[in-house]
Amino acid sequence: MESLAHIRIVLDRTSHPGNIGSAARAMKVMGLFDLRLVRPGRFPDAEATALASSADDVLDAATVHDTLDDALADCTLVIGTSARRRSIEQEMTDARGAAKKALEAGGSVAMLFGCERSGLDNPALDRCHALIRIPTDPEYGSLNLAQAVQVVCYELRMTALASAPVIESQARLPASDRRMGVFFSRLERTLQAIRFSTPGQDETLHRRLRRLFLRARPDDDELNMLNGILSRTLKTAGIDERKQTPERNGDG
Amino acid sequence: MESLAHIRIVLDRTSHPGNIGSAARAMKVMGLFDLRLVRPGRFPDAEATALASSADDVLDAATVHDTLDDALADCTLVIGTSARRRSIEQEMTDARGAAKKALEAGGSVAMLFGCERSGLDNPALDRCHALIRIPTDPEYGSLNLAQAVQVVCYELRMTALASAPVIESQARLPASDRRMGVFFSRLERTLQAIRFSTPGQDETLHRRLRRLFLRARPDDDELNMLNGILSRTLKTAGIDERKQTPERNGDG
Repeated sequence: MESLAHIRIVLDRTSHPGNIGSAARAMKVMGLFDLRLVRPGRFPDAEATALASSADDVLDAATVHDTLDDALADCTLVIGTSARRRSIEQEMTDARGAAKKALEAGGSVAMLFGCERSGLDNPALDRCHALIRIPTDPEYGSLNLAQAVQVVCYELRMTALASAPVIESQARLPASDRRMGVFFSRLERTLQAIRFSTPGQDETLHRRLRRLFLRARPDDDELNMLNGILSRTLKTAGIDERKQTPERNGDG
Repeated sequence: MESLAHIRIVLDRTSHPGNIGSAARAMKVMGLFDLRLVRPGRFPDAEATALASSADDVLDAATVHDTLDDALADCTLVIGTSARRRSIEQEMTDARGAAKKALEAGGSVAMLFGCERSGLDNPALDRCHALIRIPTDPEYGSLNLAQAVQVVCYELRMTALASAPVIESQARLPASDRRMGVFFSRLERTLQAIRFSTPGQDETLHRRLRRLFLRARPDDDELNMLNGILSRTLKTAGIDERKQTPERNGDG
């Protein structure tokens, strides 16, 4: 997606190559491709490639940097992830807020993730314009690295889609009020024909059935199917619809 | 989080135990604890435990089920995940919309995930009131299982946090999956009895009707009413239900 092309995922001193692979996969599935690795523990590595699955092209294109300075050089906005609270005031946001900020920014944006054990260190945190805290269960603690990358990339894509022209959901068009009215009349006639309800009574029953079918919001095809069932039921009850006027009930 | 306590994560025929462990971890970090496994490939398993990390308590408490029926029996809302498009109309939503739906629902809610290779099969899809499609890069395809569980659980937590003290709408409690199943069987018998459908055929027809009634989400009283209508219809068709076994069709 073009609107995500200015966003880089930067992993600072990742120890486990499997996490690099999983991060690449998490990126690609959400349409992100620019991966930057600062002093990775082991890279390239077979485990990274295995876990990247078919996101191996993201791994192949990843750049490796000796310093964070180098990795962030072209970035105009750096958003870090941190489970820790800091004493120094710094803008905190959730992944959704961060995605909005990243999408709105001009120039290169880095989403920065620290190492598995301790997260971002103070020099790295000091580079960040804002910090993401993903809300997790306070009793259990934080996401692992690949999961955090997944959530952040997911929010980036969701935000990008929300601001893009949405592809119409090829929606079902529910049947018209008029057609529903015809269906309800026939339904009530049928219920009388099978002696489930009696003419003039059971208004409550009919009202409840109307409510139920209105909730389902059948489309025209579905309504044809329901009407077909009623026709067969009337026929089973020995009633020929063609001889009926809509005003007369099924017992007539 | 209390507002998530009614939500179950149901994994249908997961092949890789590592994915079960990762799913447990993804759940716990977001405050979800009820894991149900339908015919897992291998469970319990050392790999599951290793990847669950300290979410091993979620694994220990997970229930294993022989059938999807059993796993969903108490659930009043079933939301499936699917990368596939289906031809038959079914409500599609994203993970955010699904989380909202799940949080607003009374009664047990199942978030249902299919197996790694092929996702949910048709019988499982037919159980779902709505399907989640997580927007991913169309060129690359879908999330893996643990990532999908992570995104869904993350959205559940985000939604729960946003809507914190919800005033329970003293809502209608929809009928359970088990009761809906009994109703559908009787509906299909009835359609055969009035010769609207023929035994062994018309699967598409039955599936569309299921979809329609699942959308309406009848409560217990409404289901009693619908069952009453079917009983009267069967009687009109000359069929005495008491002489029937559920396996035999209405023409028998």
